[in-house]
Amino acid sequence: MSKDNLTAVLYKPKDLRLEQTPIPEIADDEVLLRMDCVGICGSDVHYWQSGACGSFVLKEPMIMGHEASGVVAKIGAKVKNLEVGDRVAIEPGVPCRYCEFCKTGRYHLCPDIKFCATPPIHGNLARYYKHAADFCYKLPPHVTMEEGALLEPLSVGIHACRRGGVSAGHSVLILGAGPIGLVTMLVARAMGACKIVMTDILQSRLDFAKQLGADHTILVNRESNEDDLVVKIHELLGNYPDISIDASGAQATVRLALLATKSGGVAVLVGMGSPELTVPLAGTVSREVDIRGIFRYVNEYPIALSMISSGQINVKPLVTHHYSLEETLEAYEIARQGLGIKVMIHVQPRDTNNPKKF
Amino acid sequence: MSKDNLTAVLYKPKDLRLEQTPIPEIADDEVLLRMDCVGICGSDVHYWQSGACGSFVLKEPMIMGHEASGVVAKIGAKVKNLEVGDRVAIEPGVPCRYCEFCKTGRYHLCPDIKFCATPPIHGNLARYYKHAADFCYKLPPHVTMEEGALLEPLSVGIHACRRGGVSAGHSVLILGAGPIGLVTMLVARAMGACKIVMTDILQSRLDFAKQLGADHTILVNRESNEDDLVVKIHELLGNYPDISIDASGAQATVRLALLATKSGGVAVLVGMGSPELTVPLAGTVSREVDIRGIFRYVNEYPIALSMISSGQINVKPLVTHHYSLEETLEAYEIARQGLGIKVMIHVQPRDTNNPKKF
Amino acid sequence: MSKDNLTAVLYKPKDLRLEQTPIPEIADDEVLLRMDCVGICGSDVHYWQSGACGSFVLKEPMIMGHEASGVVAKIGAKVKNLEVGDRVAIEPGVPCRYCEFCKTGRYHLCPDIKFCATPPIHGNLARYYKHAADFCYKLPPHVTMEEGALLEPLSVGIHACRRGGVSAGHSVLILGAGPIGLVTMLVARAMGACKIVMTDILQSRLDFAKQLGADHTILVNRESNEDDLVVKIHELLGNYPDISIDASGAQATVRLALLATKSGGVAVLVGMGSPELTVPLAGTVSREVDIRGIFRYVNEYPIALSMISSGQINVKPLVTHHYSLEETLEAYEIARQGLGIKVMIHVQPRDTNNPKKF
Amino acid sequence: MSKDNLTAVLYKPKDLRLEQTPIPEIADDEVLLRMDCVGICGSDVHYWQSGACGSFVLKEPMIMGHEASGVVAKIGAKVKNLEVGDRVAIEPGVPCRYCEFCKTGRYHLCPDIKFCATPPIHGNLARYYKHAADFCYKLPPHVTMEEGALLEPLSVGIHACRRGGVSAGHSVLILGAGPIGLVTMLVARAMGACKIVMTDILQSRLDFAKQLGADHTILVNRESNEDDLVVKIHELLGNYPDISIDASGAQATVRLALLATKSGGVAVLVGMGSPELTVPLAGTVSREVDIRGIFRYVNEYPIALSMISSGQINVKPLVTHHYSLEETLEAYEIARQGLGIKVMIHVQPRDTNNPKKF
Repeated sequence: MSKDNLTAVLYKPKDLRLEQTPIPEIADDEVLLRMDCVGICGSDVHYWQSGACGSFVLKEPMIMGHEASGVVAKIGAKVKNLEVGDRVAIEPGVPCRYCEFCKTGRYHLCPDIKFCATPPIHGNLARYYKHAADFCYKLPPHVTMEEGALLEPLSVGIHACRRGGVSAGHSVLILGAGPIGLVTMLVARAMGACKIVMTDILQSRLDFAKQLGADHTILVNRESNEDDLVVKIHELLGNYPDISIDASGAQATVRLALLATKSGGVAVLVGMGSPELTVPLAGTVSREVDIRGIFRYVNEYPIALSMISSGQINVKPLVTHHYSLEETLEAYEIARQGLGIKVMIHVQPRDTNNPKKF
Repeated sequence: MSKDNLTAVLYKPKDLRLEQTPIPEIADDEVLLRMDCVGICGSDVHYWQSGACGSFVLKEPMIMGHEASGVVAKIGAKVKNLEVGDRVAIEPGVPCRYCEFCKTGRYHLCPDIKFCATPPIHGNLARYYKHAADFCYKLPPHVTMEEGALLEPLSVGIHACRRGGVSAGHSVLILGAGPIGLVTMLVARAMGACKIVMTDILQSRLDFAKQLGADHTILVNRESNEDDLVVKIHELLGNYPDISIDASGAQATVRLALLATKSGGVAVLVGMGSPELTVPLAGTVSREVDIRGIFRYVNEYPIALSMISSGQINVKPLVTHHYSLEETLEAYEIARQGLGIKVMIHVQPRDTNNPKKF
Repeated sequence: MSKDNLTAVLYKPKDLRLEQTPIPEIADDEVLLRMDCVGICGSDVHYWQSGACGSFVLKEPMIMGHEASGVVAKIGAKVKNLEVGDRVAIEPGVPCRYCEFCKTGRYHLCPDIKFCATPPIHGNLARYYKHAADFCYKLPPHVTMEEGALLEPLSVGIHACRRGGVSAGHSVLILGAGPIGLVTMLVARAMGACKIVMTDILQSRLDFAKQLGADHTILVNRESNEDDLVVKIHELLGNYPDISIDASGAQATVRLALLATKSGGVAVLVGMGSPELTVPLAGTVSREVDIRGIFRYVNEYPIALSMISSGQINVKPLVTHHYSLEETLEAYEIARQGLGIKVMIHVQPRDTNNPKKF
Repeated sequence: MSKDNLTAVLYKPKDLRLEQTPIPEIADDEVLLRMDCVGICGSDVHYWQSGACGSFVLKEPMIMGHEASGVVAKIGAKVKNLEVGDRVAIEPGVPCRYCEFCKTGRYHLCPDIKFCATPPIHGNLARYYKHAADFCYKLPPHVTMEEGALLEPLSVGIHACRRGGVSAGHSVLILGAGPIGLVTMLVARAMGACKIVMTDILQSRLDFAKQLGADHTILVNRESNEDDLVVKIHELLGNYPDISIDASGAQATVRLALLATKSGGVAVLVGMGSPELTVPLAGTVSREVDIRGIFRYVNEYPIALSMISSGQINVKPLVTHHYSLEETLEAYEIARQGLGIKVMIHVQPRDTNNPKKF
């Protein structure tokens, strides 16, 4: 095994360095992975630019990367689900397995979860990385390493749709057409949603959304009147949306989600910008529109893999940029500028581990 | 049958009059009721004082009253569930029976529901009143007419607890110890809640709450620091509450509900004061605390009656004041001053229709 | 309006007659329909052959037909959702609107429901038929009258999948590849099922199922060993199915559903042959496999229409035979022989009312 | 620490011996317990008498005991939730923590769960026993060690009621008035059930059930006609039960559960006698009565403890017999004869560890 373990380490805001780190030792229930693909997420850019994301703050140097796939290089003594050479997608959060949340099937809320590239836990943007074997999912030969890495954002979309209860016949409003909004749209469709309208502030994103399958799109801007937007949404759908999913986090889109949703429906909030928001709660309450936040995902990696593997969902068009590990800083800069949709870093030469090529 | 139909009519804010109105004619699926008990609700006082409650505005004279019980005086041709002389509780909202909400079991959200004493629909604070027979529930002999009237606020409490998913072993935070907070507490206990803490701004209400069964109480005021209150709630319960139910509607209590609830738990909002609130949504979302509003109740009258009839819940202590129909204005004045808990108007002499006396 | 009201009346077993009946008078909340398409269902054939289906027994002459679409010819005084000329699908069961089941959103269990062609209620295989306006669903121009009639079996499939909780990532076993099994498969796929295996006793049906989208098929016969079949199912799916749906009703398939389903999963039973079955309940119970029957459908017509209208599901290939009303007996004979999948009777010349032709 | 580790070991059917075994060594996440109370369960008697229970078969000598409480004698290096001297209830099943069932909150279905006194896993009827620390629940001072042991059967009752969806206003039929039927009744009441009817073949058990809180009881025998019993149940409840819970496992009671339950209701099957049963599934399916088995319990120990600790449920009357560890064989013989309700073995002198005495 090579001794090279080039690793992307964030020292402090705007100080992301590529440097050698020791190859990790594994425990009995872990595997060592030779990393392959690592996507860049909005939160990565936040940490890089500001050293913080929500309530998580960078205090010591941290290895980046959490949307990833790799190849098993070594297995722990008790590992039974994997073998050396297996190509795997990596679910980046490993919970404590002992607390109430772990036991009740909501391990993503475990207060002791170790989640890649969330301070102070290191991520996997490196040549080698170790992980709990049961949070690695073996990819079938026809699923590419890029798709393996994309299971991460896809799982967010699945969690959003499952929390919203998306099912056959539903009409769905999705606010925000970035990567999360887009995968959410793909998932909603695959779960039976019949009418999907998406909003964004960039026409280019909406065009892409429509190409990917959205039925309708609405371009919004800071001057848009929320009552007019609600009317427009209802006109396009022919009714109120059963479920609204905010993948933007801005006060304006959260408000729109609450105002537009059908009485008795659900507004799902995927992520939040500012900690405090002013919202029309009285009307929401009196129409029994439920508000449900989502935090990452739980038990959704296997679903995401099944959806990709069976062809129910195609996430390949989302990857618009490719870089090598050595080009990490360039890749982050592209992600920061919001060019394209998903920027993928290839730790190994592209297609090395794909039996079915790009 | 007497021609007397003395009726409490609200003409405009602060102009509530007792006057004769015609005894209504009934349709084939309706019954005519000789009214017995009619409780006064917070919304009644709102209409009386300001001519409005939430988005509902008084535009024409309206008969008051919606927490009521009566005796069947006449039945329509197609009525099979009731007979003349039956003592009944009256569920005050009658939906259209044709729309999507009616067909999916959420008839309380029916946009065409006719709900007593909600403009422009008349209420039942009168000698006689007609109602859809299937929304009248026959009382067993040992249940009093007062209890029949109290099924209305009790149904609100049941709806709040059912929407919150209160069940065995739960710890519950209830914000507000007025009539709705109190019935909610009784219901939560009867559904298996093991620890209940209540907050209010009046010590007298908290004392009453404790007497009625609350485990812990916290006196709050405008200067209370919300972080300190959260800590205190967690200390008293030994943990985060699984479910928080706001029966107050103030921004401060809504915030407390969101902040104090366990990750993955539910915050139920029973009613709202101002249309817009500033709330810590980001933290709520990232802990997956669901926010669920409630609007009145649905399919809960039969449950409320079963709970009273079987002795699982005792609402009798809630009635602190009794007045005759002729004393309606005095009764409203007492309710306005917030003296006591529930003010009951007796349209017929008290105990006339109670086989089992007070 | 023509006075011709040719009608298919079942007098007694094997005595189905075409004869004139009076054109019905409508009530205020009803519409008169000029019938267009009426499909033949397995239960129709049962009544025709034996005079009974399950616990329902023919005692007087009954008009056949319940999978139907038509055009509004007249509207009642209070009808607001439809206009004369509207093309509609007809949900064949109209409940009482007053009972507990109607109020809780499970109107299909209403003991007083009037369901077309279920004794003693007449069906709609006639030139004219009247129906509750709110149980008629207006078809968009691009949805054909045949598709309108097919909403009925499709609704059964949707109800089966919703009761089973089919969602993203599930693997599903469907037992029986007749019309109900096939629509169930289409629905399961559209709701996110990733792997679907179907069984039947006829290879021709399995071939059709595969063509329509099933991933795997298994031919079974009376000699098949159930343990071997369970193993084969698990091999094909790579795991236990999350949900099994029996669309056959035979003891052998019910047993297979119980034995094959994943622990904690759901076995849905769509219909039953004999009243009593011997089943391995102990193993089912100890693995917490839930058994859920289905009875027709409820609130699923609007979903079915959305799924067809949006193109999520294509039921057109299911119609294999077309007959005119005058050819009803011939059509029933074909249905009885089990030739093809769905036999459609055209009460009006085919395509008369289809803006978008076959 | 004493070297005495007197232990009850089942060698083969009817060969239960008391003998010394080594005091176990603990792992980092385990605790060593000085055992206090161990109740005898029906399954214990089965193993003792026949060497098997359901599909589990005794192949090697096995230590008995799984309804137990003890005092922490030693803690592993990583244990944080307990200290030496803590009095704890012991949840007897420890799952693998890695599989799909563990991650989705249904760890009781984990195929690798190690459950006390289920072959080949040893139980805890001994002086000393080691257990996973997180499956030990610290008892508050006012909860006795006997109550700690009784959390086990109580958890079964809670699981049955939660699986059945028992909630406010429900009427419940419970078949079988043995220990499980009785705790189920107590739980159903504490969760809001308003009317409870119980059946059994022994009048003495029914008398005890009524004393404990059942509203109605029905004595059944092998000659009872099931249709008559259904009528009687409906008469006593004034309606069909919303939920039926079979705590007997006989074909006759399972049939009664299916036949008596309200359309759209739930029949819960707690345990099964013979592997195959003949049941009226067609009628069950067409009325959408769901059948849900239960296997032990999951996440219910904390609920059981809360219910006991808060006084919502009182299980003390269930313990009718007390024996020392040395009297184990006598205790088993009493349990086998079905005398009394719950037989408790005291490994330490009674009340040694109860701050609040019997």
